[in-house]
Amino acid sequence: MKPESDARDHLRVVLVRARNPLNIGAAARAMSNFGFGHLRLVSPYELAFREARSAVGAAELLRQAEVFDSVSEAVRDCTLVVGTTAAERRELQHPLRRLEYGGRLVRAHLAAAPAAVLFGSEKHGLSNDDMAHCDWLLRIPTREEHGSMNLGQAVAVCLYELIRNPRAAARSPKAPAAAPSGDIERITGMLEEALEASGYLNPLTRASSHNKLLRLVRRMHLTARDAVVWQGMLRQILWKLSSTAR
Amino acid sequence: MKPESDARDHLRVVLVRARNPLNIGAAARAMSNFGFGHLRLVSPYELAFREARSAVGAAELLRQAEVFDSVSEAVRDCTLVVGTTAAERRELQHPLRRLEYGGRLVRAHLAAAPAAVLFGSEKHGLSNDDMAHCDWLLRIPTREEHGSMNLGQAVAVCLYELIRNPRAAARSPKAPAAAPSGDIERITGMLEEALEASGYLNPLTRASSHNKLLRLVRRMHLTARDAVVWQGMLRQILWKLSSTAR
Repeated sequence: MKPESDARDHLRVVLVRARNPLNIGAAARAMSNFGFGHLRLVSPYELAFREARSAVGAAELLRQAEVFDSVSEAVRDCTLVVGTTAAERRELQHPLRRLEYGGRLVRAHLAAAPAAVLFGSEKHGLSNDDMAHCDWLLRIPTREEHGSMNLGQAVAVCLYELIRNPRAAARSPKAPAAAPSGDIERITGMLEEALEASGYLNPLTRASSHNKLLRLVRRMHLTARDAVVWQGMLRQILWKLSSTAR
Repeated sequence: MKPESDARDHLRVVLVRARNPLNIGAAARAMSNFGFGHLRLVSPYELAFREARSAVGAAELLRQAEVFDSVSEAVRDCTLVVGTTAAERRELQHPLRRLEYGGRLVRAHLAAAPAAVLFGSEKHGLSNDDMAHCDWLLRIPTREEHGSMNLGQAVAVCLYELIRNPRAAARSPKAPAAAPSGDIERITGMLEEALEASGYLNPLTRASSHNKLLRLVRRMHLTARDAVVWQGMLRQILWKLSSTAR
């Protein structure tokens, strides 16, 4: 049982009247990057589709792409149909949802049943007739002044939202092991010695500067590994300082 | 004071040795879509850069793009430098963070100070020398089997994560007003009448089927507007049924 890949298997990416082979190829590549396999094309420009079959890493996916004459046929097996649009204020007959929220709804649906996400042509987007097949519309939160995205990029961003793991946002990364305090004190001690030997520190004021130095070294947030390197470097410097002093 | 646009103004998108004018143009277009203005190019192929200047909606941004000879110069004013990589397991000398989490860190930094996000060349990504300038690395969570994204799409997805509004994911959309219960009961009553008139319902069993029908109509989740339309349609059907019965 692989529930997550089953969910991805439920998605149909539907490109309606795509014109540019590079965009069809880019859509296929993003699908492959994010693990979605079902590409459907409604009335693509025949030549564009043929040329698209060379997209990096997505040849197999393009070979299996299905071609339909109408949106109606392309979404027949889907129980949720979502259109994408750049419009923010245009008079729309459909509920318009931002990708952050709409993506969550699509994801929830995909866990149980097939859903289609429609992308319109590069020039005109989805027509009113296309939208009539949609349950609601999805909007990528682009700027009002330049809302229209490149088709391949719009597909990539929508698919990313679908595979995005909210828990991964909260997870702290595996940080490299921090240096133990003993190492930090040893380094501080060696640094003090070196500074004293080189005349930067006065032995009489050494006590008062000790804490300053310790805090300085602490602020380096050394990893355990780097602490070892620093001790090696300082040891060498101290050796050199003591040999020149003689 | 526009704190959000100030934050976006702090980002430098740095393309290192980009080769393909379409990708440079696509990166610029995504930047414009999401409201970021500072594009920097390190050793771009001169011809590619010149050809890119025609990207849809991003001509101004491309005109203002800065060209540098080295990564070091391109990130000089940044207090956080993040590299992007498709690698998941490769031996990396840097902490590797998924976009969901890393994006949060970059966003927090941008609120206060300049940060750079680096993208490597289409073919080879960032080199070890490039990465030496990075504080840590960012990974878009692509499939292991096909991790490498198109450059323009990778930029679009990363920028989307930076402008993504987590609160928008929780916000329920402005749903159209639901039909009041009075309308639902009126519709149910008219439907009953029509079914009885057409012989679907037996007057003797009408009482027992009433609740079934009411639940059926409730499950339509009618909007206030659609409830009015349904009442009009049923009224017409009832009129026709009563006139044919005579």
